[in-house]
Amino acid sequence: MNDTFGRVFKVTTFGESHGEALGVVIDGIDSGILIDTEAIQREMDRRRPGASSLTSPRNEADRVEIISGLFEGITTGAPLTMIIRNTNTKSSDYSELSTLFRPGHADYTWSERFGYRDWRGGGRTSGRETAARVAAGAVAKQILAPMGIDISSSVLEIAGRKKEEAMLEAVRAAREDGDSVGGIVEITATGLPAGLGEPVFDKLDALIAHAMLSIGAVKGVEFGEGFAAARMRGSENNDQMDENGFLSNHAGGVLGGLSTGEDLVFRIAVKPTPSIAREQKTVDIENNPVTVSVKGRHDPCIALRIGPVAEAMTALVIMDLIMLAR
Amino acid sequence: MNDTFGRVFKVTTFGESHGEALGVVIDGIDSGILIDTEAIQREMDRRRPGASSLTSPRNEADRVEIISGLFEGITTGAPLTMIIRNTNTKSSDYSELSTLFRPGHADYTWSERFGYRDWRGGGRTSGRETAARVAAGAVAKQILAPMGIDISSSVLEIAGRKKEEAMLEAVRAAREDGDSVGGIVEITATGLPAGLGEPVFDKLDALIAHAMLSIGAVKGVEFGEGFAAARMRGSENNDQMDENGFLSNHAGGVLGGLSTGEDLVFRIAVKPTPSIAREQKTVDIENNPVTVSVKGRHDPCIALRIGPVAEAMTALVIMDLIMLAR
Amino acid sequence: MNDTFGRVFKVTTFGESHGEALGVVIDGIDSGILIDTEAIQREMDRRRPGASSLTSPRNEADRVEIISGLFEGITTGAPLTMIIRNTNTKSSDYSELSTLFRPGHADYTWSERFGYRDWRGGGRTSGRETAARVAAGAVAKQILAPMGIDISSSVLEIAGRKKEEAMLEAVRAAREDGDSVGGIVEITATGLPAGLGEPVFDKLDALIAHAMLSIGAVKGVEFGEGFAAARMRGSENNDQMDENGFLSNHAGGVLGGLSTGEDLVFRIAVKPTPSIAREQKTVDIENNPVTVSVKGRHDPCIALRIGPVAEAMTALVIMDLIMLAR
Amino acid sequence: MNDTFGRVFKVTTFGESHGEALGVVIDGIDSGILIDTEAIQREMDRRRPGASSLTSPRNEADRVEIISGLFEGITTGAPLTMIIRNTNTKSSDYSELSTLFRPGHADYTWSERFGYRDWRGGGRTSGRETAARVAAGAVAKQILAPMGIDISSSVLEIAGRKKEEAMLEAVRAAREDGDSVGGIVEITATGLPAGLGEPVFDKLDALIAHAMLSIGAVKGVEFGEGFAAARMRGSENNDQMDENGFLSNHAGGVLGGLSTGEDLVFRIAVKPTPSIAREQKTVDIENNPVTVSVKGRHDPCIALRIGPVAEAMTALVIMDLIMLAR
Repeated sequence: MNDTFGRVFKVTTFGESHGEALGVVIDGIDSGILIDTEAIQREMDRRRPGASSLTSPRNEADRVEIISGLFEGITTGAPLTMIIRNTNTKSSDYSELSTLFRPGHADYTWSERFGYRDWRGGGRTSGRETAARVAAGAVAKQILAPMGIDISSSVLEIAGRKKEEAMLEAVRAAREDGDSVGGIVEITATGLPAGLGEPVFDKLDALIAHAMLSIGAVKGVEFGEGFAAARMRGSENNDQMDENGFLSNHAGGVLGGLSTGEDLVFRIAVKPTPSIAREQKTVDIENNPVTVSVKGRHDPCIALRIGPVAEAMTALVIMDLIMLAR
Repeated sequence: MNDTFGRVFKVTTFGESHGEALGVVIDGIDSGILIDTEAIQREMDRRRPGASSLTSPRNEADRVEIISGLFEGITTGAPLTMIIRNTNTKSSDYSELSTLFRPGHADYTWSERFGYRDWRGGGRTSGRETAARVAAGAVAKQILAPMGIDISSSVLEIAGRKKEEAMLEAVRAAREDGDSVGGIVEITATGLPAGLGEPVFDKLDALIAHAMLSIGAVKGVEFGEGFAAARMRGSENNDQMDENGFLSNHAGGVLGGLSTGEDLVFRIAVKPTPSIAREQKTVDIENNPVTVSVKGRHDPCIALRIGPVAEAMTALVIMDLIMLAR
Repeated sequence: MNDTFGRVFKVTTFGESHGEALGVVIDGIDSGILIDTEAIQREMDRRRPGASSLTSPRNEADRVEIISGLFEGITTGAPLTMIIRNTNTKSSDYSELSTLFRPGHADYTWSERFGYRDWRGGGRTSGRETAARVAAGAVAKQILAPMGIDISSSVLEIAGRKKEEAMLEAVRAAREDGDSVGGIVEITATGLPAGLGEPVFDKLDALIAHAMLSIGAVKGVEFGEGFAAARMRGSENNDQMDENGFLSNHAGGVLGGLSTGEDLVFRIAVKPTPSIAREQKTVDIENNPVTVSVKGRHDPCIALRIGPVAEAMTALVIMDLIMLAR
Repeated sequence: MNDTFGRVFKVTTFGESHGEALGVVIDGIDSGILIDTEAIQREMDRRRPGASSLTSPRNEADRVEIISGLFEGITTGAPLTMIIRNTNTKSSDYSELSTLFRPGHADYTWSERFGYRDWRGGGRTSGRETAARVAAGAVAKQILAPMGIDISSSVLEIAGRKKEEAMLEAVRAAREDGDSVGGIVEITATGLPAGLGEPVFDKLDALIAHAMLSIGAVKGVEFGEGFAAARMRGSENNDQMDENGFLSNHAGGVLGGLSTGEDLVFRIAVKPTPSIAREQKTVDIENNPVTVSVKGRHDPCIALRIGPVAEAMTALVIMDLIMLAR
């Protein structure tokens, strides 16, 4: 198994949904950086469950504890380790799920790969693992901000609806039906220098795509015009230039795998939450057919909460590339 | 710069479009494998230019020469190196482009990153670099085939058209206009064992997305229902199971980043060729505005030739994961 | 900075001597392994300070807490994280050392590299960091033992003396003089399969040498006959074979970088503890000449305590190679 | 198998002793560097066989051909690939050795690891592989020289003799006896900045030790006082400082794994050449006892030719660390 992301600014996450703690080691961070722990906590709060009536009622404070790498609040260059204790764990919610494979989850595939699994809340494959990524991303964002680099996200669509009230209505309706909905989220990074990325395998967009698809619910990613570019002509899709720079940004800020200096713009497709109350067919661990209705405390729409995670992963990619390029 | 792909079955490509040779080192290959050089050549021929009236007229034999790693035709476990000599190079086609940045290419971004560039045919950033990937992928395919793993691709759309004759007509029309068209290609891998991939950062789909976006003209990737899943409900999108296995494959063969054992199915968005004869605005290397009409010998539709490259990269991802999982 | 060791069985340590905790993440461990926490603790106890009148009086319980990767005591394949809280920290011992560079320590060089440092007890560069390595090594040893692989060490020399009572006498004498002594330790791994290692850069002996010199006080390493081989003839040094195997083991169990199946035998040179009470010349952080007498609680002879650390690192190298070779 | 050395300045070698070519890809080199091919050739000539009556009579021109990464003689940042054709290969010398394991060589261990081997001249495990390392090291040296960093080596001992004439006499005597001798070589790097290295696992001395033991004939390495430090007291071995810097260099230029800015000084133990004409016992590939007298064209003393290889590996370590630290 590999739980490290990045080549120089290396982020290793650990921990399970219902274990003692989640955590992350950031190895390769520069020394002399004053860490703003409150800013980290604010990013955690953006992601954490229990924050709205439309997200999971599991209420986790998600307090980040820094246990290494700081001396008097400042990084020394040593690995920075952050831990988030799990406090509101109800494994009992999951005990009846311990012997079957929930549809749309990694239960079956993990068992095929590892033979043995922590079935409490999805164990290592829970979306809760992304809390550790958000903590690491918050540190990266703090380092990028003074360079003028800002990363943000917005929900473009929920269940095909593009207006906020219609989106939320679709979420409510799904929840009432014991069902869930998907959506599309756009991420934008501004202020990138031109030339960021590696020209062959580790193109900026390749690393971002890797990062996005590493988030459990993401089923697709597209840059700039994306799939629409497949229906355009070269003369429409090319970004022409004049002495003031690019005249358009169909490419989404990346050419030949390297940043153009324009905004990096991409979208992710987020699938509907697989944990639903509606009854579904599956098998138990002895391959007997059974039906399951997933109770627990689940978001009816992951797209509403995924933004901070996608931003965090974007920050990690950019941070690593900036360190590699210097 | 990083030109290596893979963690255990490590593939490093080298070479430029108009340099002496392209090549690839495969490090980490098992010993005792009889290499079928004719099968490698057949994959090269599928990708090579000059093969049809609708692809680039640059005629390269693309003969693969194996210069290390084999003893009496069989791998020893040592690095396998393959070289493809460039023979039909007309740098003169490019000399007038040496001082300006072609729209839609890496000319500008490479200069921003590296300061100095080989402008002959795009140098290292040319699509020609993918010849080396196809050679490596052909070796991986040979190893995967006896395991029952097969990788194929098909062109789903060109310029929004879905029937073969309409597709080709769109290509011809674009060429006559001095323009180009994009398309969508679907790749399918059959015969994968369940459980392939890493559950966190190196999910099977994350690695495939990385691999696909590492191909120059690709602007998006989606798995299974992909972007359409964002408009589905959980009850529609989840793949239910019974004692005979999965009842559908909306997921495209991957759950929680691990293969399900169903077909791995994904699609890539291929942008229209950026090199077009139509006049476009750009700047020269001193930032003076100029116009450019790219002559040279270019494909009007990269989507027609990208399949073997996408298959090769898919084979490399799968090969590496199989070695990591054993 | 890089704090990870290993390619597949990847061990990342974190933490400082006088910070909140030391710790280690083991990423890449197999699933289904029952972890014997008492055995881990026993290895910790072999290394921990305060155990004898001849080692540092800093008394640390060094209790290992496992916070991820286990479910009901068994590994799931997820990252295994262990934490060791620092309890007996007296930073005040070091406050007067905060503005000067102790001779023989990394104080000066860390400042040159990182600019900013945690001066409490050496911070990240303290020998205390090796506690985390011992915990990881203890896990590796548990996995290796059922394969018949055993790793042990013995002190060959202290201050040039080769008999136990003379060795201890030399340590006592040095301590009374406010001074310290070095020594030579031999490590032996038995039960290795033949063929372990990588034939070029990652030779078994190269990885072991890397591992040994990564321990702060080690100044040299030699395999089999080692430096004595430089004074032998080929006919004396070669290990001949007959149908029952090797007739000698001058090579120390490694040929061409791969294990022979004979015992892996190597020795390390351990320098005398740099922290001594005797007055020495050094400079402060503003480059003013000063003298220093290092009080604190220090071992007069690191060679007496280094065995478990060297064994742990050896176990990590072997574990990683075994996973890579399968 | 892993044939790559370095994290950022990554060097991958390939090729066999009696295959078509040896070669190396340098990935991660900066752009804009004018490569002096004559200087590379001079390093090759220092290493190449046939240069003296006391080294192997196999006469290889060892001409380096650069096939990628240069444009008009200057690096572009793309992978730099160099190839050295094998010309003077007499596989027939080895055909009678194809079915047995030469004492002191990797023949037996390679077979245990990979099952199948190229027996012509040792195949991939031949000392000839180091030609590719010398080519890469020569490039690194060119980049380091303008930074004031110089790497050199000298033979300290042959067969225990420390005066040049006695050394050569020992070599001649061994050759006449159909035997071989070992020696000790010292390597010195001057002009290093302080603070180079990583404080934990990738200490400067750990990486150098890794690099040295990755050279086939090396059986030990020691830094500064090395094994002698094990017999010194702390007060003797510590390097004190005053306002002008260090007052001694017992440490050999490294403290806590980071360079001190003093000369980096270390020594390697080189075993006697294992290929000797004297009859030795071994087994064939079916484990029948046989005797062997290795004819071929071999150096009676590897220590005489190893200097350029050790320097090259040292240059690669330093180059990589400098790139990582910036």
